[in-house]
Amino acid sequence: MGSLITLTTDFGISDAYVPSMKGVILRLNPQATIVDITHDIEPQNILQGAFVFGSAYKHFPPGTIHLVVVDPGVGTERRAVLLATPEATFIGPDNGVLSYVLADLSPNEAEPEVGALRPYRWTPPQGARAYHLNNRRWWLPRVSSTFHGRDIFAPVAAHLTLGARVEDVGDETHYLEALYVPRPVRLDERTIEGCILHIDRFGNLIASIQEWDLPRADIEVKIGEKVIHGLVSSYAQGEGLLALIGSNGNLEIAVRNGSAQKTLGARVGDRITVSWGEDAS
Amino acid sequence: MGSLITLTTDFGISDAYVPSMKGVILRLNPQATIVDITHDIEPQNILQGAFVFGSAYKHFPPGTIHLVVVDPGVGTERRAVLLATPEATFIGPDNGVLSYVLADLSPNEAEPEVGALRPYRWTPPQGARAYHLNNRRWWLPRVSSTFHGRDIFAPVAAHLTLGARVEDVGDETHYLEALYVPRPVRLDERTIEGCILHIDRFGNLIASIQEWDLPRADIEVKIGEKVIHGLVSSYAQGEGLLALIGSNGNLEIAVRNGSAQKTLGARVGDRITVSWGEDAS
Amino acid sequence: MGSLITLTTDFGISDAYVPSMKGVILRLNPQATIVDITHDIEPQNILQGAFVFGSAYKHFPPGTIHLVVVDPGVGTERRAVLLATPEATFIGPDNGVLSYVLADLSPNEAEPEVGALRPYRWTPPQGARAYHLNNRRWWLPRVSSTFHGRDIFAPVAAHLTLGARVEDVGDETHYLEALYVPRPVRLDERTIEGCILHIDRFGNLIASIQEWDLPRADIEVKIGEKVIHGLVSSYAQGEGLLALIGSNGNLEIAVRNGSAQKTLGARVGDRITVSWGEDAS
Repeated sequence: MGSLITLTTDFGISDAYVPSMKGVILRLNPQATIVDITHDIEPQNILQGAFVFGSAYKHFPPGTIHLVVVDPGVGTERRAVLLATPEATFIGPDNGVLSYVLADLSPNEAEPEVGALRPYRWTPPQGARAYHLNNRRWWLPRVSSTFHGRDIFAPVAAHLTLGARVEDVGDETHYLEALYVPRPVRLDERTIEGCILHIDRFGNLIASIQEWDLPRADIEVKIGEKVIHGLVSSYAQGEGLLALIGSNGNLEIAVRNGSAQKTLGARVGDRITVSWGEDAS
Repeated sequence: MGSLITLTTDFGISDAYVPSMKGVILRLNPQATIVDITHDIEPQNILQGAFVFGSAYKHFPPGTIHLVVVDPGVGTERRAVLLATPEATFIGPDNGVLSYVLADLSPNEAEPEVGALRPYRWTPPQGARAYHLNNRRWWLPRVSSTFHGRDIFAPVAAHLTLGARVEDVGDETHYLEALYVPRPVRLDERTIEGCILHIDRFGNLIASIQEWDLPRADIEVKIGEKVIHGLVSSYAQGEGLLALIGSNGNLEIAVRNGSAQKTLGARVGDRITVSWGEDAS
Repeated sequence: MGSLITLTTDFGISDAYVPSMKGVILRLNPQATIVDITHDIEPQNILQGAFVFGSAYKHFPPGTIHLVVVDPGVGTERRAVLLATPEATFIGPDNGVLSYVLADLSPNEAEPEVGALRPYRWTPPQGARAYHLNNRRWWLPRVSSTFHGRDIFAPVAAHLTLGARVEDVGDETHYLEALYVPRPVRLDERTIEGCILHIDRFGNLIASIQEWDLPRADIEVKIGEKVIHGLVSSYAQGEGLLALIGSNGNLEIAVRNGSAQKTLGARVGDRITVSWGEDAS
C-alpha cells in the first residue's frame, strides 16, 4: 500500500473539517502525502461528488487510497465501506458516491431512464473486494455521530498507509449501494438521447454521451430549442454554441470564451439528443 | 521541532499572497510539509479566524508549527508573537487570533456578556512561553510594511524547522493580547444563554454552548421565535430545525439537507437559549 | 532539476481538472512536491494569470518547475512552450501568460499606451533558452485536444523532475509570444499615468506604478474624481481612501478595513495618475 491519500468532500475550504481530517492523518503518519481532489462538491450532492471523483481518480498512481466523503447520512444506519481493487482503495459512506468507480469496474446492468438515479446493489467483480468498516480498532477513540470523515475514514486510511490490511478494517460484504450512472438511450436508428451529467467551471455542459456512442462526426446535437451541427475539435474553434468531445471522452457543449451554461440556462439533468443522417454506420 | 507547518489566513486563494508564503518556506526548507487550514477567513475577521483555527489545530501532530495570519494591523505597532507549548508552536500577530488556543490553555477568567469581544492580557500558564518576534535574524532581508506573513512569519517558521530555537526568535514576553471567548451565561436554574460562534458551509449554526453545559438531553432550544425540542444525534434524523451536539462538542442547530442559516436568517452573535424542566439535575 | 512543481491555472477547484494534473504528475513521480499558486484565475483571463503568477514565482526555490496553464487556445495552432532560465523552468501555452516573467528577464522594449495589451515577440536574453514542446516522447500516450494541462504540460514537468533534460522536450525556439506589461507613462514633468493591474481579495487596487517611478512621497494620487494626498505605510493607517506601496513595490489604493474596489467601483485597467509639486527631484 502506498502512502498517497486523496480527499473528495463537500466540506468546502472555509471550515475546520478538511484540515481536521488532514491533521488526523498526519498525526498517525507524518509521511503520508495528501492530495485534494475537491472539497467544493455542492453540500449533500452525492451524484456530483461521484462524477467529479470518477473523472479524477484514474490518473492517480496504483496503490492510492481515496477518501470520498459526501455523507448526508452520517450517524444513521448507512454503512461505512472500503472497496479494494488491484489498482486502488476507496473509502467512504455506502451511499452511491463511488458509483462511477463501480460502473467502471462493472457497467450498469440495465439502462435506466435518462437522468434517473435508481439505486441498486452492486456486487464486486473478480479481483475486487468490499468491506464494511466496522472494526473500531482503527478509528479515533471517540467517534462523533456527525463527522466520520475525521473520526473513522481518515484514521482508517492513515492506518492502511502504515501497514494495516484491508481485510482488517471490518467484515467483508458482498454488495455496495450504487446509483445507476446515466447512460444514453437509443430512441431510433439515428438518434440517441442523453443528459447533462455535470457543468464545469467554464460553463461547459458535459453529457452522458460518450465518443463511442456516436457512429460518426457529422452529427446534429439538440439541447432545448438549439441545434448544433457537427463536432469541432477544440474550444477555440468556431463561434457560438459548439459541440466537441471533451478530455474524458464525453460529448460536451461549449461556447468559445463564454459559458454554454449561461447561454442556454442549462442545468444538470437536461436532455441532449444526438442524431445523424441515414447513411450513418 | 517537526517540519510540518500549517497556514490559516484571510488571504483567499486567488492572489499571490499564500503561494508567496509557501515559496519563502520551501526556499529555506524544501523538505517542509505545508498544510492549509483555511485561507477563506473573511477579510480582517480575527474572531472567525480564531474559531476555525481553534477547531482544527488540536488534530495536528505534536511539534507542528502553526502560522495564523489574520492581520489587519500589519505595519502598525501591533506585535508579532510566538507561543510555544509542549504540544505545538503558534506564530502570528498579537491581536487575538489565537484566542481559542489561549482559552484552551487557561480558560477565560471571567464570563463576559454573551457575544462580547472584550480584550484582555493573557499570561502563559506553566509550560507555555511567549515571545515577541523582534529578532530580525530570521526575517527576510527586506521587510514590507504590509505583508509580514511572507516577510516575517513564514521565514521564522521555516527556520524553526531547520533548527532555530524558539528562544532565539525574540524577547520573551509575559502576556499576549486575547479576546474573551464567549461562554454561555446561566440566566436561572433551568436556563442558559449562549450565542452563535460560527456558521459553517452547510449553514449549521455552531453555538458557544458545549455538551457539558447541558445537564440533560430533553432540552428546549430557542433561537429568535423558534423553539426546538430535544436533541437528535445526527443531521439526517428528524425534519425541519434540529438541535444536536456537533463534532467538537458544541450545540448546533441544523436543517436536514438544508441550511439552518437560510431557514432562520441567522448571523454570528445571535442569541440562543437552552432551558430544561424542573426535575433536571 | 528539483522536484518542486507549481501550478497556476484557471481551472477552479470544483472540477476534476487540477487533481487530474496532480495524479498524472504523481503517477510518474510519487516524490514530486506540488504547490498550488492559484486555480482561481478568471476563465481565459491570460493577463490576470500572468500578473498573479508574476507576483508569486520569485519566492520559490531555484530549480522549481512552474506550470502556468491559462489556455483558451488549447487544441489550436498555438504552441506549447518551455522557458529555461538559470533560476527556474516555466511551462505553458505560448500566449502571453508568462509575460511578467519575460518582462522581468528583459523589460518591455517600448512603453505602450496605458492598459494596452499589444503582443510582441520576446527573445530570450543571455542565459535563457526557449523550447517548443513538440517532442511527444514525454506526453501522455493519448493527447486530448482540450486538456493539454493533463496530457502534455503535467507529464513533461514530471519527466523533468525525473531527469529528462529541457533540450529534449522539443525544438529550440528563438521567440515567445508576449504581451506588453503596462508601464506608466510620464504626462509631464510632475505627472505620471498608470492603470490598475489587479484587484486583490481585499479590494486593494494594485497599480502599474512602482515605488521607483515616484520621485517623492508627498504625492497626489488621482483615480476617477477622487484625490488621495500622500502615502501611508500600512493598511491600518489613516481613514478613507489610502495610497501606499504594497508588498511587491507597486502603488496600491486601499480602504482601512474595507474595499477600495467597492468604494470606487474600480476595475482593472482604470487609470490612475500621480503628480507631485514643483520642487520635486
